[in-house]
Amino acid sequence: MKLSQPTEPDVMSVSPLAVPFPDMPPIEGVTLRVARAGYKDWGRCDLTYAELAAGTAVAGVFTQNVCCSSEVELGREQVRLGRARALVVNAGNSNAFTGYRGREAVEQIMAQVAQHLNCDPGEVFVSSTGVIGVPLPKDKAREGVAKALDAAPSGWKDAANTIGTTDTFAKGAMASAVVDGRTVTLCGIIKGSGMIAPDMATMLGYIFTDAAVEPAFLQQCLSAANHGTFSCITVDSDTSTSDTVLAFATGKAGNVPLTSFESPGADAFAAALEDVCRQIAHLVVRDGEGAQKFIEIRVSGAVSDDSARRIGLAVANSPLVKTAIAGEDANWGRVVMAVGKAGEPADRDKLSIGFGGIWAARDGLPLADYDEAPVAEHLKGQEVTIEVDIGLGDGRATVWTCDLTHGYISINADYRS
Amino acid sequence: MKLSQPTEPDVMSVSPLAVPFPDMPPIEGVTLRVARAGYKDWGRCDLTYAELAAGTAVAGVFTQNVCCSSEVELGREQVRLGRARALVVNAGNSNAFTGYRGREAVEQIMAQVAQHLNCDPGEVFVSSTGVIGVPLPKDKAREGVAKALDAAPSGWKDAANTIGTTDTFAKGAMASAVVDGRTVTLCGIIKGSGMIAPDMATMLGYIFTDAAVEPAFLQQCLSAANHGTFSCITVDSDTSTSDTVLAFATGKAGNVPLTSFESPGADAFAAALEDVCRQIAHLVVRDGEGAQKFIEIRVSGAVSDDSARRIGLAVANSPLVKTAIAGEDANWGRVVMAVGKAGEPADRDKLSIGFGGIWAARDGLPLADYDEAPVAEHLKGQEVTIEVDIGLGDGRATVWTCDLTHGYISINADYRS
Repeated sequence: MKLSQPTEPDVMSVSPLAVPFPDMPPIEGVTLRVARAGYKDWGRCDLTYAELAAGTAVAGVFTQNVCCSSEVELGREQVRLGRARALVVNAGNSNAFTGYRGREAVEQIMAQVAQHLNCDPGEVFVSSTGVIGVPLPKDKAREGVAKALDAAPSGWKDAANTIGTTDTFAKGAMASAVVDGRTVTLCGIIKGSGMIAPDMATMLGYIFTDAAVEPAFLQQCLSAANHGTFSCITVDSDTSTSDTVLAFATGKAGNVPLTSFESPGADAFAAALEDVCRQIAHLVVRDGEGAQKFIEIRVSGAVSDDSARRIGLAVANSPLVKTAIAGEDANWGRVVMAVGKAGEPADRDKLSIGFGGIWAARDGLPLADYDEAPVAEHLKGQEVTIEVDIGLGDGRATVWTCDLTHGYISINADYRS
Repeated sequence: MKLSQPTEPDVMSVSPLAVPFPDMPPIEGVTLRVARAGYKDWGRCDLTYAELAAGTAVAGVFTQNVCCSSEVELGREQVRLGRARALVVNAGNSNAFTGYRGREAVEQIMAQVAQHLNCDPGEVFVSSTGVIGVPLPKDKAREGVAKALDAAPSGWKDAANTIGTTDTFAKGAMASAVVDGRTVTLCGIIKGSGMIAPDMATMLGYIFTDAAVEPAFLQQCLSAANHGTFSCITVDSDTSTSDTVLAFATGKAGNVPLTSFESPGADAFAAALEDVCRQIAHLVVRDGEGAQKFIEIRVSGAVSDDSARRIGLAVANSPLVKTAIAGEDANWGRVVMAVGKAGEPADRDKLSIGFGGIWAARDGLPLADYDEAPVAEHLKGQEVTIEVDIGLGDGRATVWTCDLTHGYISINADYRS
């Protein structure tokens, strides 16, 4: 059986929207190590191992795709227990759609690490991303994990590079908050959307913090942050089988553990967590396949925030809107169309559309004195905003996407297996 | 105010999936005339007029887009009365998002034709397609309609060409049925999806028959036919503000009018109507923007027919599936992903995926003896089938789409207003 192979990542050109990897401090209670399992014929590490101090709390959000991988199925069960001692991320093989053989490979990794740490296998989290339909090779996994357990500690950028597949740059972000008189730090890394091989677009994100947070509250904060960050980005509307975001809290900052929003500093922590989530979510859009422009869509006046988000995503997923932005064309008619097809309450005669803060149409009519020159100037930039005022209520949302270019077609179609 | 102008249609190259216009007979009670209103600087006719015999029944289905045009709003009200005497189709200006001024232009056309025919304005149907946000110029419309009323009768192909905007070929189809001992004929014309200018993708379709059919039953047949034809095609997932399909039955065949499925010949008529709808729906896909391949997606084993249709559309709308077919890549993993994101019941371990009648994966596992050679051969052709067996129930549906190519990007993005 012959299956799709990703193109060698080295030949990819870096996204024009790339940003430098930030200088991120270590998080006490987190030790990172990388190794080469050789899942693909890549001249680089492809297995990331993060060891977590005993007592680390964990929370997670996962893909809604019903054809999800074994890693996602197991991860969903594991986060219910709320405790983590290690994370293993395989790059180059998503292990999705591989049935019982895929599950066996994941359980082998969990057992191997659990034995090393003398912990419960349920405290070992595994993610995999890459080609679909090929069971993760157990021998390569066993050797790769053994090498990682022996490796010298590495930094955030190495880990961010190692979890990537066809990403074109390493993606990380940080934030901090004062909780209970102590400064806690949050560091996040993420991979995704820079696919040059015709496999699944997958997103994996990990946030580590030294804050002490009870698992249930960590899950509450992560789910809330997810709603306005990862759930508000789209590159091509295709929901992966492997999407996973995990948050780990080692507790080494020594604060009184956060248990609810009543805890002192809980609001600051939740805000910092959402901040990191938003930053790394944006980085995925910036590495979107073929992306030349980063697009922010601000919806106001919808009947509810959820309605605003669905309208924003309808605009963000519209191929006609995305190609218009690629062509630097202030085609507000396409935005009208996308709002109208969202299936949400909207009234054509109350609808207003703008670009870069300048209204092109107000209350259902093109503005008579609309001057396209400043809008055209705005659209020439790398960061474009689209404003949509539904004119019906107070619902608001912001979503982010990238444009749809020849690069997307080249990455995904100019190829034969 | 400067707005997008469609590129001169003459410069477009014909879709590689084009088929010749069929030899369609006249329908008694239908007289076609075309004229040049000059909505755009096109060197061709852009206004189509169809005069219908007194007593003609009408039925219609319209876009679900809530930001629809005045034409669609009025048309929805008009079909409730069930009678038509004329149809006017403007090409080059969609008159959408134009507020009260757009509505005035439509009402003017209805009044002008009603005066000429001495009928109720509600019996005059108007459609418009083209640029959005510019009110249809009333003077050009008045002159164009006057010219059309004076013009010599024309044939189906002229009418099919005249309703087109950036379509790359004229699209028509016919069918017949024996009803009450008489042969009735159905002729359909359609425009859409061959947009080379960055306006809205719009679909307008018209079916004319000499059968005698009561309006309510005609509507019942059209709605049923629509469900499995127009509602099962997609080019790029963007729902237009102007989509309209109207069916006109002049009654000149002289059969006892069909009033329900109890009427003799009603089943044959309904089947012929669905046949014409399917044929012209396929022609729209064949003229899809940038299309190189015609894709049929056959879903079986879903929990219901509706569920199967939604799964089929999720596959058909997936940019990753469409680019894989463009690249002639049997990437069944992307089909798995699209099934999983459809939001419909599916079980990864019961799912089977095939191409051209050959299974690549069965019951959630890639087939060990899967031979990709015949599949690769199938994918090289212009007509590709994807089979999806959900393995849960008896629900079935077939949907049609085209591939996603550089042509789509060129048509929609390589452009500045």
